Parts: sequence; structure tokens; C-alpha cells
Amino acid sequence: MTTTPRADRVTPISGFPEYLPADRIVEQRFLDVIRETFELHGFSSVETRSIEPVDRLSRQGEDADKEIYAVSRLAGGDGDEEARWGLHFDLTVPFARYVLENAGRLSFPFRRYQIQKAWRGERPQEGRYREFTQADIDVVDVGELAGHFEAEMPLVVADVFSRFPVGEFVIQVNNRKIPEGFYRAIGLDTAVGLTETLRIVDKLDKVGPATVTSMLVEAGASAEQAERCLALAAIRTDDLSFVDRVRGLGVEHPTLDEGLLALADVVRAGMAYAPGRIVADLRVARGLDYYTGTVYETQLVGYESWGSFCSGGRYDALASDGRRTYPGVGISIGVSRILGLLLGKGLLSASRSTPSAVLVAVNDEQDRARSTDVAGTLRSRGIPCEVAPKADRFGRQIRYAERRGIPYVWFPGANRETRADQVKDIRSGDQLDADALRWECPPQDLHPAVIRTS
Amino acid sequence: MTTTPRADRVTPISGFPEYLPADRIVEQRFLDVIRETFELHGFSSVETRSIEPVDRLSRQGEDADKEIYAVSRLAGGDGDEEARWGLHFDLTVPFARYVLENAGRLSFPFRRYQIQKAWRGERPQEGRYREFTQADIDVVDVGELAGHFEAEMPLVVADVFSRFPVGEFVIQVNNRKIPEGFYRAIGLDTAVGLTETLRIVDKLDKVGPATVTSMLVEAGASAEQAERCLALAAIRTDDLSFVDRVRGLGVEHPTLDEGLLALADVVRAGMAYAPGRIVADLRVARGLDYYTGTVYETQLVGYESWGSFCSGGRYDALASDGRRTYPGVGISIGVSRILGLLLGKGLLSASRSTPSAVLVAVNDEQDRARSTDVAGTLRSRGIPCEVAPKADRFGRQIRYAERRGIPYVWFPGANRETRADQVKDIRSGDQLDADALRWECPPQDLHPAVIRTS
Repeated sequence: MTTTPRADRVTPISGFPEYLPADRIVEQRFLDVIRETFELHGFSSVETRSIEPVDRLSRQGEDADKEIYAVSRLAGGDGDEEARWGLHFDLTVPFARYVLENAGRLSFPFRRYQIQKAWRGERPQEGRYREFTQADIDVVDVGELAGHFEAEMPLVVADVFSRFPVGEFVIQVNNRKIPEGFYRAIGLDTAVGLTETLRIVDKLDKVGPATVTSMLVEAGASAEQAERCLALAAIRTDDLSFVDRVRGLGVEHPTLDEGLLALADVVRAGMAYAPGRIVADLRVARGLDYYTGTVYETQLVGYESWGSFCSGGRYDALASDGRRTYPGVGISIGVSRILGLLLGKGLLSASRSTPSAVLVAVNDEQDRARSTDVAGTLRSRGIPCEVAPKADRFGRQIRYAERRGIPYVWFPGANRETRADQVKDIRSGDQLDADALRWECPPQDLHPAVIRTS
Repeated sequence: MTTTPRADRVTPISGFPEYLPADRIVEQRFLDVIRETFELHGFSSVETRSIEPVDRLSRQGEDADKEIYAVSRLAGGDGDEEARWGLHFDLTVPFARYVLENAGRLSFPFRRYQIQKAWRGERPQEGRYREFTQADIDVVDVGELAGHFEAEMPLVVADVFSRFPVGEFVIQVNNRKIPEGFYRAIGLDTAVGLTETLRIVDKLDKVGPATVTSMLVEAGASAEQAERCLALAAIRTDDLSFVDRVRGLGVEHPTLDEGLLALADVVRAGMAYAPGRIVADLRVARGLDYYTGTVYETQLVGYESWGSFCSGGRYDALASDGRRTYPGVGISIGVSRILGLLLGKGLLSASRSTPSAVLVAVNDEQDRARSTDVAGTLRSRGIPCEVAPKADRFGRQIRYAERRGIPYVWFPGANRETRADQVKDIRSGDQLDADALRWECPPQDLHPAVIRTS
């Protein structure tokens, strides 16, 4: 009754990363930190299905369309229903649909977090994946959304990132109303268009100010308009002085005033609760045109060229059912991007490749039940462990533990005089009498540690 | 710069379940229990990509083929590579590929757990989904796999299930060698065929013994062969007496002897470490023909008609690279199936719909920072909380907490004499002075509780 699969070649698929067990432990630690922090801040978990109707996904604009993975029954569908499904490419589109679908059963303002895979048919490159994990928070309300939520989002992210072993980071904030009011005041809205101007300014980091200037002029701006536009984008302060610097440019517009007030609230909260982490950076635009207020980007200091690891913003209409609209504010951590950097560059590793803190040795196969008893007792006390796979020479059993980084090997009845159990710390070689009901596993050894390797 | 999505209808897609926040909390609790228990038993986490080449998926036989969801770029691929991807329909096929791909970088025997979504294009029905979560453990070795792992698997599962709020459960075990040897000894292998006989006997629960008898006879068995076959399948004991009962049928075969010895080891371990949870049930066959030793099924007592919630078995060749084969034993918990039953029937619920244990009230919007300070202090002490969205009348702020099941509302400076903060348990109405640096949240209120509602 045995079937043997035919021998075959296996190859990775580019853009679909998979980790070995030790790196997966690092990923789990990041996901645990994110979840724990989101929950400390009172966000409820939501998980949506992986597929959405293609027409819902493709509403996000022409670029999204090209990147959608369509899903259909290999054998053909029961109807044509399945011919129109796609894998979600972010967590915002499915969340918007979830809010509409369950509006009557949710309490607003609704604080939700969502940690899931998403898929994009992009060409894979460093830090860009076709299957990747995102961790999002959003606060969504009905009709109106209070401005203080825009100040709260980056504080939650700062709390998450300060628990990561990633070093320094900076959350850059801007408010869409600042460039909008400013551009209107100097006539760029008619000369070039608001969205087009933002789109060009968004390239500043990549192409530099000279190219942006010529792009703006080519798009219809005067040299003076382009210059003032770049002067605005050059403003970056970690305190409230950005307000005076904008005022110093001598431009006035009621929308600009609104934006400055709102951004000052965000920066003020940052100064109070996450000092040094949140800066006003007036070049931050974010590509998506549905943002209407604060926008966020997050860079790791020293890795600015990798771009943003956590972005988002305020939108006036996440969704609408015709009668009501749902404004919100959200931010999304690119978990796979961060891990791609940290693991790809060898900056982090796990202290072992298994949860086991203890390997219980087996004296001989007839005596395996004794080792199983020890393991059961240790587990009942919360100590992860496993029993040796084979009653080998002890040297071999110790090597089994060593290969996996398991710090302790337990020897039932090893004390030759008293027949007491003994436990060996295989790093120091120390071997001492121990009782499974009482032995304390040092807290730093109970679970694998994540280690910064540079 | 505002775009408003057009108003639209949203409808669930059958077979793709989604939970409201309170039910999601129940699901998270189950997933946490599973992960924690698997890790206590020393299994390492692996997560594989969601897609596999279709030719790898479809190797599992004709039934699998029909249920595969194919994945391809909506806009067309760069080559034809993507035309041959499918979503995995279980976690065994991707794990087998992962083992082959990483064999040189894994330590064997390799103990891994994997908790992920899988997709099958089945017709949805009660407890059957098209997108569902599985939680698998397997132990895989190179060349040979020790028999004691077959006894270990159901002990891990019993440990998981005994931590679930699901009541009584029974893990039914059999060994493929028992029917194989028995059928060979009485000539059913030539009269009907081994696989075909197993396939028919597997229907016993559904169609009953009379129909199975006539199916066997129709397939070529004599009335006596069919009767003996059913006599074997009727044996079910929670101790080692099944061995004598099989012997009592007067059939001898070396493969049968092997199977009885191996199954006795599994049941003996069950009697020692999970008494009453593991029974020898000789009708258990499992559909998949790659099992070669112990096979497992798990039923919840009182919900036997739902079938098995956790199944698996021993296989001689999970994978092969031509030079080496990788035998293993594994078992898979159908997380979505269990939750479909427990949540669908309203047997479980969560005590609240948010992680927040405390709502910090806001006296007035000018004073919001004071409430944010309290929340920060509570969070630094591990207490999940949120600040009220609006400086409403306190009655409204309390109702905000009530609607979500948040047990405590914190009032900054509420003591009229001392200006001390106060905290109200909104269930009892008790309101007492409290200091955010010292207040102890009762442990049972710190996180949402999962409650059996029947």
C-alpha cells in the first residue's frame, strides 16, 4: 500500500520568501511584538478572506490592475463567479469591504488591526515581494472622524518599532492640506494640477531637486512656482518650527492654515510621547490619491535607501454605502520588507532553531517512558522540551541538542550514587542534580532569543 | 483631492468564512493554545508560500485536481511560469517540497508545526470551507523513522484538545498493517483489492454495515470474507484487549502481527499519558493511500456526525530526492472545522469584542493629554486600554465601553476632594480611587475570556 512520490527537482519561486526555522523564529517574534502592542492600544483583530471580487480590487486604479493575481478553479468553475476573484494586494480594500458588510454589527469608531499575507504580481527585487505580510491598524468612524486619531497612529507605530531590535527609526509626517493649500495659493493647481504636482514632488528622494524642478517646469510650472514648491518640500523639523518656516515662505491659504494646525497637533503629540521619533517632513506625499489629511512614512536610520517600512494616512472615505461614508486613518507595517532587510543582511538571528529549551536524554529504548515522564512534568510547568529521538551514546544525544541550539540536556537518574536526575548546560558543561518538579529554567533560556548580530 | 468610492453592494462569498471581532478573539485563543502546546512539545514553526506548481499539487490523485484553485496574473504573466501555479489545498504537499528544498539545512529527525490557510474548490457545506485554517505537526526523518513517534503524535493532540473548551474528545487509532495483513490472510487482496476494500470499509459510518457488506460482495468478496472484514472493523477498545479480539477472529498473517504490535504501543502510551482519550478503532482507514502505519481520527463526543476534526497518519515516503526518502508521521487539526461547529452553534463566545480592559475617559477635549498619559502608564504595565474617542457626557463614555464589553472605565481626577483618579467596574458599578502606576487589573479581566455558552 506504499506509494513513493517520484524524485523531483524543487526550486524556490522568486518573490515568495520562505524561512528556515531559526529565521522563522525571528519573524514570529516580530509578529508577536506587533500583535501585543496593537492589543495594548485597544485594537481588535480582524482577518479577512484572501480573495475579493476583481472589480473591487481593480477600483484602486490602473497600476493595481496589472499586479492582481486572479484565482479560478483549475477544473473550471460551477458558474462564472470564480472567474472574477483575485488575491487581495493590500489589507485596506478587504477591510473597507468588511466594514460595509458588517457595519450594523460593529461599534464605531472601530479600532481594528489586521496581520495577513497579501499578493502583488510585481517584478521581485530587493525588499519587494510577490507574497508578503502586512500589519495594519485603522480607526474608522461613521460620517466624521476626530482629528486626535491622526496624532495617535504614529504613537502606536513608535511603540511597536521601539520594541523591535532595529535601532533608530524616524516617522515622517505631513498633511495633504499643506501642499494642497500651498499649491493653490501659488497657482500650481491650475498650472500643473494638484495630483500631478504631488506625483512629481514624490520623486524628490529618487531623482533629486534639479530633475524635479525641470519636471515641474515641463508640466507647466513657472521657474518661480517650481522653486517655491521645492522650498516647501525642503522643510523638515522635529518640533513645531516647521509652522514658522512655512509662514516664512510668504504664502497664505485657508487650506494651508488647516493643514499646519492639524500637523502641529500630530508633531506636538510626538514630542510629548515619542520624542525624537516623529518629524514633520513636508516632502512626504504618498502615492495614493485617497489620502486627505495626515500622511506617514517610516525610515530606519542608516537604511534610508530602502524607503519606507510603514506608511499610511488619513482618508475621508474608506468606504461608502450610499447613505453613509466611513472616514478613517490607518498605517501599515511592511513586515516582510523589514525582515527582508534584517535577515537578508544577517543583522538578526535566533539563538536556536527550535522552541525546545531542554532535550531529555534516553538511557535505553526500554526506558523511554521515564524520559517521557520527565518531559511531561517539564511541559506542565511551561518548559518547552523534547525527548531524544534515539537512545544513542550520550555524546550523540548532546550533539543532537547542540545542532539545534537547545541549551540543556536532561539525564534521568544520572547521579550514580543517588540515582537523581541531572541536567547539563551544554554551553558551560556544568551538570547538576535536578528534579523535574522543581528545576527552574533560567528565563533568558526558556524561549529562543533574537540576537542582533551587528 | 478626495475620491469617494462608489456606493456598492457587498456580499459574503460562501465557503470563505470571516468572523466578527468577538468570534475572532475565540479563534485567536484556539490558535494560541495550538501554537503554545506545539512549542511545549518542541516543534519548530514553518510557514510555506501559499502557491505551489500545479503539477506538484495534482500528483495527489484525481480528486485533488478538481479542487485546485489556479493562480495567474490578471494581466497575463511575464512568461508561462505563473500559468502553472495553484493555491495549496493542504500543508503536507508544501511541507514535503520544503523538506526536499532545504534538506541540507535542516536537522533530522525534523519536528515542525505549521498553522496556515489552505484552499479547496469544494462545494461549501456545514463544516466544509473553501478557505480554511489547518494546524499540522509532523516528524520527518531520513531513511528510517522510529516507531515511538507514532505513539507521540496523538499525545500532543490530546494535550491540545484538553486545553480547548470543547468537552470530551476521542482520538481513534488504527494501523494500516492490521487490515492489510488481515485482508491478505483471508484473500480479500485478490478478490477485491486492498485499496478498494479499505475504500469501502471507510464508508461504514456513513452507510452502515449492511450496505458495506453488499458493496464488498458486489466488488468480488464472498459473503464469508465480507463478514470477517466487518467483524474486524467492529473492534473498538480503549485498552490492549483489541489484540486478543483480533486474535479471536482466527486469522494469522505476519503483517497483521506487525500492525497489532505497533498499535499496541500507541494505545499503551495513550493509557499512560492520555487515559480515556485514545482508543483502538479498527474501522478507521483514512482515505489517502500514502499512509503505511498508524492512522488517526479525532471526534468530539456528542458531535460524531461532524466526523473527524483532526486526522493523520504515518507514511513511508513523504518525499524523495531519488537518493533518499523521507518517512514521517503527521497529524492535522482542522481549526476552521472546529470553530465552524463551536461558533456556528453558538457554543462559545468571547467576554468582549476588544482587547481593551480599560477605557480611559476624557473630561474635556482640552484635557485629552491627561487621559493619554494614564493610558500610556497602564500600557507600560501590560494593561490593554484605549482613550475615549470623545469628551462626551460620562454616561455616553460608559456606554461606549459597555457596547464592547470593556469592564473598567478610568476617570482622571474624579475624586472631588483629593482629585485622585478613579476606576469604575461597570459591571458592579463600584468606583474606587486608583493610581495608574499601581492599580492591579484583576487577572481574569486583563484579556478577553472565552466562555462556554452551553
